[in-house]
Amino acid sequence: MGQQPITFIRQVLALVTYPPLLDDPKFPEDAKQRARTILAGCRGGSVGSYTDSPGIEVIRRHVAQYIQERDGIPADWQNVVVSAGASDAIRNVLKLLICEVNGKRPGVMIPIPQYPLYSASLAEFNMPQIGYYLNESTNWGLDVSELQRAISEARKTCHPRAIVIINPGNPTGQVLSRENIEAIIKFAYKEKLFIFADEVYQHNIYAPGSKFYSFKKVLIEMGEPYSKMELASFMSCSKGYMGECGLRGGYAEVINMEPQVKAMYLKAISAMLCPTVLGQACLDIVMNPPKKGEPSYELFQKEKNEVLESLKLRAKMVADTFNSMEGFSCNTVQGAMYAFPQMKLPPKAIEAAKKAGKAPDVFYAFELLENTGICIVPGSGFGQQPGTYHFRTTILPQPDKLKGMLDKFAQFHKQFLSKYS
Amino acid sequence: MGQQPITFIRQVLALVTYPPLLDDPKFPEDAKQRARTILAGCRGGSVGSYTDSPGIEVIRRHVAQYIQERDGIPADWQNVVVSAGASDAIRNVLKLLICEVNGKRPGVMIPIPQYPLYSASLAEFNMPQIGYYLNESTNWGLDVSELQRAISEARKTCHPRAIVIINPGNPTGQVLSRENIEAIIKFAYKEKLFIFADEVYQHNIYAPGSKFYSFKKVLIEMGEPYSKMELASFMSCSKGYMGECGLRGGYAEVINMEPQVKAMYLKAISAMLCPTVLGQACLDIVMNPPKKGEPSYELFQKEKNEVLESLKLRAKMVADTFNSMEGFSCNTVQGAMYAFPQMKLPPKAIEAAKKAGKAPDVFYAFELLENTGICIVPGSGFGQQPGTYHFRTTILPQPDKLKGMLDKFAQFHKQFLSKYS
Repeated sequence: MGQQPITFIRQVLALVTYPPLLDDPKFPEDAKQRARTILAGCRGGSVGSYTDSPGIEVIRRHVAQYIQERDGIPADWQNVVVSAGASDAIRNVLKLLICEVNGKRPGVMIPIPQYPLYSASLAEFNMPQIGYYLNESTNWGLDVSELQRAISEARKTCHPRAIVIINPGNPTGQVLSRENIEAIIKFAYKEKLFIFADEVYQHNIYAPGSKFYSFKKVLIEMGEPYSKMELASFMSCSKGYMGECGLRGGYAEVINMEPQVKAMYLKAISAMLCPTVLGQACLDIVMNPPKKGEPSYELFQKEKNEVLESLKLRAKMVADTFNSMEGFSCNTVQGAMYAFPQMKLPPKAIEAAKKAGKAPDVFYAFELLENTGICIVPGSGFGQQPGTYHFRTTILPQPDKLKGMLDKFAQFHKQFLSKYS
Repeated sequence: MGQQPITFIRQVLALVTYPPLLDDPKFPEDAKQRARTILAGCRGGSVGSYTDSPGIEVIRRHVAQYIQERDGIPADWQNVVVSAGASDAIRNVLKLLICEVNGKRPGVMIPIPQYPLYSASLAEFNMPQIGYYLNESTNWGLDVSELQRAISEARKTCHPRAIVIINPGNPTGQVLSRENIEAIIKFAYKEKLFIFADEVYQHNIYAPGSKFYSFKKVLIEMGEPYSKMELASFMSCSKGYMGECGLRGGYAEVINMEPQVKAMYLKAISAMLCPTVLGQACLDIVMNPPKKGEPSYELFQKEKNEVLESLKLRAKMVADTFNSMEGFSCNTVQGAMYAFPQMKLPPKAIEAAKKAGKAPDVFYAFELLENTGICIVPGSGFGQQPGTYHFRTTILPQPDKLKGMLDKFAQFHKQFLSKYS
C-alpha cells in the first residue's frame, strides 16, 4: 500500500541477521546496541538457533516493560508469551478452552461484525461461536443487554467460556470508552468468562477524544474481585505504524491464569518449538524503540508520526466521503485501519442479486470490482444485522491513491443507483 | 553448538530485510540477485507484507525445481506449501485427517522410538497414536510384520488413516533402503493409509553405502497403483548443513490429494495468514543455492561441505565410542543428527531407580547430568521396547567438545557400573 518500513527496525534486523555488519560505520550505534542485546539473548549468539518456546527472555522483559509504561501497572515478563503474529497467540490460548462441561461444548462470545480468524478457528476447534452484535448507532459500542441476550440464548446449547473483544475494532474501527470496558468486565465476571482482549490496533487511534485503554489496565484498576480475573491481551507487529505483517511478530500477555493451566499452555506451545526469531527481534524493537538522545530517535519519531498522522487524515477522509454519498452512512473511524460503512441498496438491486445467486452486499462488491477494479470485502464476510448491508474498506492506500479510489467509488455508486432505481 | 551460519544465506536475508544494502559493494552480486528475485515476489517489494498463505510463488517454484532435480521426477509448484518450519506443515496436514469413521477415531501410525512432535500433536488433536516398533537389530529398519501387528491391533479401537515415516530417522539415525521404502508403500497401499514422509534430514547422510531416497521418488517409480497414492513430504531449513532453526522455514509437498480436501487444506492455513517471509526467503536459498560460476559458489560449497564432513566424522566417533563402552550397543548413525544407543543397566541400578520413583533410563540420565553436566534424553521420551533402555544424544557439538564429552561420559559410566554392581 506504499507505506515505507521504519528504517531503525530494518537496520536492527539486518544487523542481527548478518553480524559482520556490526563493523559497518553506516549503521547507527544504537541500532548496533539493540542488535547486540538481541544476539546476546540468542543461543550461540545466533538468530538461527531455537529459542525458548515462549520467546527470548530479554524480549519478554522488554514487552513487560512496554506494558508497564503503557498502563502504569506492573507487568510480569513471565506472563508474556511471544508468538508468530497475534493469530498464533490467539489460537494457542483459545485451544486451552477446548473442554466439554456437562456434555456441553465450550462456547466463545465474539463480536458481529468480527475478524474472520475467530469464526475460522472456532470452527476448526469445534467450539460454538456465540455472536453478539455491536451497536452501530453508538459507533459500534458493546451493549451489555445485547451481551446478555446472546449468552442467555447460547446457554441452552453450549457452555460459554470466554468473550472476545476487538479494541480498536476490526472491521468496525471503534475505540471503546473506559466505561464501556468496565461494563464488559463486570459482565464477564458475572458470567465467569475468560477475557480475550484483541488489542493489536492499540497504536492506531485517530479520532479527537478517543483514547486507548487496555482491558488489563481497567480490570486491575477496578480492584477485586475483577482484578483477579483471567485475561489474555494480544499485540502484533503487523499493525500500528510499523505494519511488518510479513515478519510475524506478536505476543500474548496472560494474567491470573490458573497455574496448572498455564503449565499446560507452555507445554502445548513447545510442540511448535519457537516463534521465528526475526519476528521476535522485530517485536523487541517495537516494544523498545529508540529513546530521546539516541542517534536514531529523531528519524524513528519522524517516520512513526508521519505514518500515524497520514492514517489519521485518511480515517477522516474515508468516513467523510462515504457519509457524503447517497444511501451510505459511516461511523467515525476512531481507530484501527478500516471503515465499515452501511449502505441502503435499492429493492431492484436486491432482486438482481437474488437472481445472480449472490447476497446483495456480495453482488454490490462484484459490480464494484468489475466496473472499477476496487476491491471491498462484503459485510457478510464479517457478519452484520440481518437485512443490513455493509462492507469493509481500509484506510491504508496512500492519500493520493485513496482520493482517486474514493472518487471512482462515488461515481460508480451513482451509476449503480441509477441502474437499479 | 558452534556451527557457523552459511554466509550466503545470511547475506541474502540481510539484503531483503534492508534493501539499501543492495548498493553496498561488499555484498556479492549473486546474493543481490537472489534478494531482488525474492523482493520481486513480495507484495510492494517488501518482506514486511503478507504473502499468499502457501508462500511466495517464486519460492514455491524453486522448491518444486529442487524436488525435481533431487528425484528426477516432475514436481508441480502448486503442490508445494511453504511453512514456518516442518512442524507447522506436519500439523497442518495431520489436522485434515481429524474425522471419525463409523464412530471410530482416526488413528495414525508412528514409529517407536519417535520424535515427540507426533505424540504431542496427536494427543492435542485427540487422534489415537498407533505405535510400530523400529527393528533395532536391522539398524532401526521397518518390518512389515511389525507394521501389520500394530495396525491389526489398532483396528479394534480406531480407524487407521495415516502412517508417519521419519527418514533419515530421529532419534534413531537410520537411512531406509529403497527396498524397505517399497515394502512400506505396499503396506500403506493395502491398508489405505496416507503417507507422511518426514524427510527433514535428507541432506544429512553419512554412512558409506547409505543413500537418501524420497518416498515420492520410490512411489512414483513403482508405477500404478502406488503412484496414485496420497503422500506428503516435509522438509525444513532447521537441519541439513544450514541449521537455521530459528528462522522457521520449511515446506510440505503434497501429491495426489483429493481436490476437495486440498481446497480445504489451503483454506484452513489461510486463517494463519502466511508463514514468516524471512523463513520463506531462507528456504528459497536452500532450495536454490549458488550455481557453479557464480561469485558465491566456492564459499558456499566449502562451508556446506565442512559442516557435512564434520558431522560425518562425528557420527562415526559417537557410535564407535558407545560401542567401546561396557554394556552399550549403538547402531551405525547413517544419517540425521542423533545416536540412540542401548544400554544394559545392572539390577541394582534398576532397583535404585525404582526407589527414586524414576524410570531406569531417566534415573541414569539424571545421575549423568548431576555428575558431569552432560544432558541426554532418556529413551522413554521417544518410546522403546519394554525392558530396554536407551537415550538420545546428538552429534552436533564440535569435534573437540564432543570428544571431551564422550571421555567424561565413559568415565562416568565406569563409576556408575561399579557403584551399582
